[in-house]
Amino acid sequence: MLPKTGIGLSCKDWYSDICGVEMSMGSLTINFCYHCGSVMTRQIPASDNRMRDVCKSCGIIHYQNPTIITGCLPVFGDKILLCKRGIEPRKGFWTLPAGFMELGETIEEGAARETLEEAGAIVRIKSLYTLFDVAHAGQVSMFFLASMSSPEYQAGSESLEVALFREEDIPWDDLSFSTVSRTLRYYFHDREIRRYPLHRDRIMPLSLQAQENG
Amino acid sequence: MLPKTGIGLSCKDWYSDICGVEMSMGSLTINFCYHCGSVMTRQIPASDNRMRDVCKSCGIIHYQNPTIITGCLPVFGDKILLCKRGIEPRKGFWTLPAGFMELGETIEEGAARETLEEAGAIVRIKSLYTLFDVAHAGQVSMFFLASMSSPEYQAGSESLEVALFREEDIPWDDLSFSTVSRTLRYYFHDREIRRYPLHRDRIMPLSLQAQENG
Repeated sequence: MLPKTGIGLSCKDWYSDICGVEMSMGSLTINFCYHCGSVMTRQIPASDNRMRDVCKSCGIIHYQNPTIITGCLPVFGDKILLCKRGIEPRKGFWTLPAGFMELGETIEEGAARETLEEAGAIVRIKSLYTLFDVAHAGQVSMFFLASMSSPEYQAGSESLEVALFREEDIPWDDLSFSTVSRTLRYYFHDREIRRYPLHRDRIMPLSLQAQENG
Repeated sequence: MLPKTGIGLSCKDWYSDICGVEMSMGSLTINFCYHCGSVMTRQIPASDNRMRDVCKSCGIIHYQNPTIITGCLPVFGDKILLCKRGIEPRKGFWTLPAGFMELGETIEEGAARETLEEAGAIVRIKSLYTLFDVAHAGQVSMFFLASMSSPEYQAGSESLEVALFREEDIPWDDLSFSTVSRTLRYYFHDREIRRYPLHRDRIMPLSLQAQENG
């Protein structure tokens, strides 16, 4: 469920990160107070040091903070389960099952839930494997190693197709996000050496990635 | 800066977790649409499977998701830097420097910023050390191992006092949150064996902790 936003807007406005369009860091325009409905102002509150959306009428401050994307890398034998995205952004591209963590669940529960919703697969979550800062999108992404006890899956409402891939068949040119391609690259490397440490990375905006590569 | 909320309310309403008062899982009451100011309704949107705050006027969905608390365990020689909280919740209790991750920063940058703001200390962030689900508070908390190159610190505006503690002087009965006490306990154990793996835990509400202990 990647296209859901933290507190509003559609995915196209908010999450267009990495392999897609450039975007701001996920800050919404707050016109009205969610508590009392008054027009909001933008100011640095007393006892704070950055601009916030403040309601001068009821005093509420509307904080905006990064959201968590949680997902997993489902393994069955020597194959990996991928979903073809049925929704924007990156519709038609292949992804690992992942989405916004919800209130009331653990990070692992969120990863397992997303895998069931998007890929119809029941997984056993193992260790935390990749942890990415995607600061320009206002997000932190985490992927867990996970195992499937059987090759059972089916496309959920947000997927066009779900399939198991051997390493040589991974559609590298048609992957949805940098977080996905990096997680897969780490995995195939680590599988060779049979060690799966936590990988910690920062994903830069495309424009900066291009500068680095140029 | 622990008492800041994800998207509103004061700390007493939102973050009263673990060693303090019981609380709900961080869901705010959204009366009005932040975009158009209309009265909101609560329903399961099409193509979703859980209750959300929906604006029937402009169509915006006001999502609420967990927030990230980022902090560090600042080490100078054989001592740990702690802050005495100057604000609720848990005013007067000792804590590791930590607070809500902000948009535009990495998790490590947030941990270093909070340490500077609350303890006036410049740290070198090392590895991710503890990662807690605090689902009943709608939070994920992370602490990084960090080193101080000099014993320089001073209380920030949200701290009453800041001090370095040897293990035998840690004020165990006056610590602010379970996330803090567990991180410290892991550290003193791991220091003995000179290995500092990532520790992954779930913090349960006090009522359930009492049942477990009883």
